[in-house]
Amino acid sequence: MSRPQAQRRVTIRDVAAAAGVSTAAVSLALNNRAGVSEATRARILATAEKMGWTPNTAAQSLSIHETHTVGLVLARPAHLLGREPFYMEFIAGLEKTLSAQHYSLLLRLVDDVAEEIEVHRQWWQGRRVDGALLVDLQVDDPRIEALSQIGLSAVAVGHPSLAGPFPAVWTDDAQAVTEAVRYLAALGHRRIARVGGPTALGHSAIRAAAFTATAEELGLPDATTVAADFSGDDGSRATRSLLAAKVRPTAIIYDNDIMAVAGLAVAAEMGVQVPQQLSLLAWDDSQLCELVRPKLSAMSHDVFAFGELAGQRLFEVIRSGATASAPAAAPVLVPRGSTAPPGPER
Amino acid sequence: MSRPQAQRRVTIRDVAAAAGVSTAAVSLALNNRAGVSEATRARILATAEKMGWTPNTAAQSLSIHETHTVGLVLARPAHLLGREPFYMEFIAGLEKTLSAQHYSLLLRLVDDVAEEIEVHRQWWQGRRVDGALLVDLQVDDPRIEALSQIGLSAVAVGHPSLAGPFPAVWTDDAQAVTEAVRYLAALGHRRIARVGGPTALGHSAIRAAAFTATAEELGLPDATTVAADFSGDDGSRATRSLLAAKVRPTAIIYDNDIMAVAGLAVAAEMGVQVPQQLSLLAWDDSQLCELVRPKLSAMSHDVFAFGELAGQRLFEVIRSGATASAPAAAPVLVPRGSTAPPGPER
Repeated sequence: MSRPQAQRRVTIRDVAAAAGVSTAAVSLALNNRAGVSEATRARILATAEKMGWTPNTAAQSLSIHETHTVGLVLARPAHLLGREPFYMEFIAGLEKTLSAQHYSLLLRLVDDVAEEIEVHRQWWQGRRVDGALLVDLQVDDPRIEALSQIGLSAVAVGHPSLAGPFPAVWTDDAQAVTEAVRYLAALGHRRIARVGGPTALGHSAIRAAAFTATAEELGLPDATTVAADFSGDDGSRATRSLLAAKVRPTAIIYDNDIMAVAGLAVAAEMGVQVPQQLSLLAWDDSQLCELVRPKLSAMSHDVFAFGELAGQRLFEVIRSGATASAPAAAPVLVPRGSTAPPGPER
Repeated sequence: MSRPQAQRRVTIRDVAAAAGVSTAAVSLALNNRAGVSEATRARILATAEKMGWTPNTAAQSLSIHETHTVGLVLARPAHLLGREPFYMEFIAGLEKTLSAQHYSLLLRLVDDVAEEIEVHRQWWQGRRVDGALLVDLQVDDPRIEALSQIGLSAVAVGHPSLAGPFPAVWTDDAQAVTEAVRYLAALGHRRIARVGGPTALGHSAIRAAAFTATAEELGLPDATTVAADFSGDDGSRATRSLLAAKVRPTAIIYDNDIMAVAGLAVAAEMGVQVPQQLSLLAWDDSQLCELVRPKLSAMSHDVFAFGELAGQRLFEVIRSGATASAPAAAPVLVPRGSTAPPGPER
């Protein structure tokens, strides 16, 4: 990131970069606290003096303008956080960006969006965070107006149409769904079903609309979507329901990987052969898809890189007030062993 | 948790509990900020007055003695955080305890233990956290002395023998390993191998010692341990190495679930039938073990509950200075489809 040097005050981050040490080390040295060697302390003090750093600007920088922390509030049950690979991978990627800048993540689980707004307000007005990420964007999300009113520095993780004035980082889900349906149709599938995420989530709504539109365009009947909560249990339930129907789909698209893995186990349990009698296509493509047999075909989305990118955009917002949205790489179809042309009609 | 009412100052948490609102709402009301209705504000102020709350103690409580935040520093690569179910389940369970008390988690990834010590020192001395959890305890862990010297309120997640003066929360890994080896030996296995975690980790060392001791006690030859890094890739590598050996084990115990799932895929790839030719036993038992075929037998350890317990113990340390260690429930053997008596010698 290129930053104009002349117009901004010297921060401990600049001193740290010039001296080749962590900001924590600079802070210890400048505050005359234990934790760095005398040699390092002397080198840091010399560097700070040479760069024109003064205690006042440093104090401001450290204690007021920069908390070296960004916030993430998740309005979802705790047990889902541990079970869904998406957020684990996203947080891990985000942490990679943050830790490179010696930033911490302030993480909070809440019951609902109203509580989430209250937490962001406390953190922001209490100067606990330099900025925040907004995730799980809903249609007409109440966070957008409430948090833009308080001037929160934030990046919205979701489609720009859901993000209001906040810069958005998103993947083009509509295009990816269209590609997935066209691929299965090109293999010869006519009865394609989808196990989607909760309908209130903005990206679930976008995917559902693209799924229906593409199925109509291709003249596919019975393009059913079953809503589920992203958990393995719910993916099993949805798959059993689809496979027990009078007219069974020959292909199922899942909105995440854990539901697809659960679907594969249900197919085995019901004696439905994958891919001979049923094609399965996962989303997100964590390591899980390659650890099962057959390996799952997936709309591969590098969630770790997505988390990294979201962190990078947030730094740009915090440091330069950037407002432009930026798409992440679109999911890419990775065919493996779970998709094939449909078998003969039973 | 029963707490003596008479001897301690009234905090906003007490007011919140009495008024039936969140501490955030109390804070907004007492600081006369937007975010709560006038009716709620009036009720909160009346409750606070009745309980003898005064602005001074509240200000202290809010800004100095209680940050409503606990810290967790992980010295491991970001990509592993996203791939290993253990930490996300642990953090999810911890978040369940924290969110019930309207606490946040301050999370930081660092490169090594030295940086971890520096971060804890900054957080603690900068009053950023009320307390912290120490995880991934090593043999002769340098964090123990450094952080006990600064008086950090913390709970060590690991065996008391590794925790120094910090209260510990741990699972009895030695007993669980012993049970696992005895179970496989009772099935008739004589060549049992183990894919363990990194040797520097305290609990890996404890498990390795118990594995070796039990194998000796039972007179089992070739009780090999291969160290791996908990990732699926490393679990695959270790399994290939064991199955390519001149004398192949008939049973393998894995130190987590993701490595066991990877081991199952490697067995399929090498044409080794599970459980007819090879028994596999996983550790931790997340949903993964039940999503593969055959389902994996496991030493089942409720990691989510372990995270909840660690959070509860930390609150006791923060609020009453408790120092006693407490074991979590020991892992329980859950036999599924991946363990059986060994087949005839090839």
